[in-house]
Amino acid sequence: MQATAKRTTKRGAAKKRALVRGEPVVRGILAAALEELASAGYRALRIEDVATRAGVNKTTIYRRWPTKEDLVRAALLSVTDEKVVPPNTGSLRGDLLALGRAIIEIQTSPAGQSLFHVFLAEGPDSELMAIARSLRAVQEAGVRAIVESAIARGELAPGADPMLPCELLGAYLTHQLIADRASVDEAQLARVVDVILLGVLPPGRRAAL
Amino acid sequence: MQATAKRTTKRGAAKKRALVRGEPVVRGILAAALEELASAGYRALRIEDVATRAGVNKTTIYRRWPTKEDLVRAALLSVTDEKVVPPNTGSLRGDLLALGRAIIEIQTSPAGQSLFHVFLAEGPDSELMAIARSLRAVQEAGVRAIVESAIARGELAPGADPMLPCELLGAYLTHQLIADRASVDEAQLARVVDVILLGVLPPGRRAAL
Repeated sequence: MQATAKRTTKRGAAKKRALVRGEPVVRGILAAALEELASAGYRALRIEDVATRAGVNKTTIYRRWPTKEDLVRAALLSVTDEKVVPPNTGSLRGDLLALGRAIIEIQTSPAGQSLFHVFLAEGPDSELMAIARSLRAVQEAGVRAIVESAIARGELAPGADPMLPCELLGAYLTHQLIADRASVDEAQLARVVDVILLGVLPPGRRAAL
Repeated sequence: MQATAKRTTKRGAAKKRALVRGEPVVRGILAAALEELASAGYRALRIEDVATRAGVNKTTIYRRWPTKEDLVRAALLSVTDEKVVPPNTGSLRGDLLALGRAIIEIQTSPAGQSLFHVFLAEGPDSELMAIARSLRAVQEAGVRAIVESAIARGELAPGADPMLPCELLGAYLTHQLIADRASVDEAQLARVVDVILLGVLPPGRRAAL
């Protein structure tokens, strides 16, 4: 009896370790959740189907993400987590270019394209959009790191809206994707970044561009 | 017989006059088409239902707009036609502010809100979006007037992408509406316009801001 209990505890601990973010099981579940979301949409998404797709028991999912909302929130975060890291290239220009490239990479990836369609289909007042909105604070942490470095380097004019450069860039890239069904190329990205940059740099730093 | 023929011709001419754009009958039909589009979507839209809603015979519609696509194209154009006129305020800053206000006014109007939902629901690869895309050249005429005046006044740095200021502004306003479900207020509009403006003005004109 004691030996069995011990083994169970060991297995429990092993399972707990396996469910740390970034571990294969977790990655598999979150990838399966994104695929289910893309094919079924948010309303019709069922934890059972995610479990089947990921090849795990549904209790494995419920243990970590008690609700569908929790699971979808984690899945959405996983898309941007790896890519929108604070680039920290040493200049606001470099960081904005890196951010722009990361956004374009996500937008043009198969997962990004599927999600884009799901979001458009569910509409701005959907539960899915509410979840995405609640994630903005988390996702903006990377952007905030760019902004804070820029302020520390004296690259933002005092009194400016510090989030505006990144917001303008993100808005432009998304708009081009919706309006033209085309992603922005590197040359146009640089043009847009330079216009935004010139608009936010303090007067003394503009000549450097 | 002759008298009857004359009367018919007179009626035909009167009808033709009535169907000049901006005339009450045309306005009524286009408004009805927008309402039908908002409630039924593009795929399910029927000319018969538009005719019923507008209180006209469906041949009155077919005579001027032979296909559903023609009618929807005209209806979409009518939304922006009256509002996105070249403001011509005498400065690029004034024109961008006027353009921004016009976009916000359309976005927050009942017709604009309904259309926004229809566009999102139909998705970026829909026929409706293709029609909207085909209209951009027409709608950009107003924007082009702003750009040309700015170039003539020496307000755009040489070598700049001339459409970029207006595109950035439009993208930002649309993105805020989608992401925050809120329109941009006058103070934020001015902040955004000034960042964009500073980014596109030639070096010698920046001090004037």
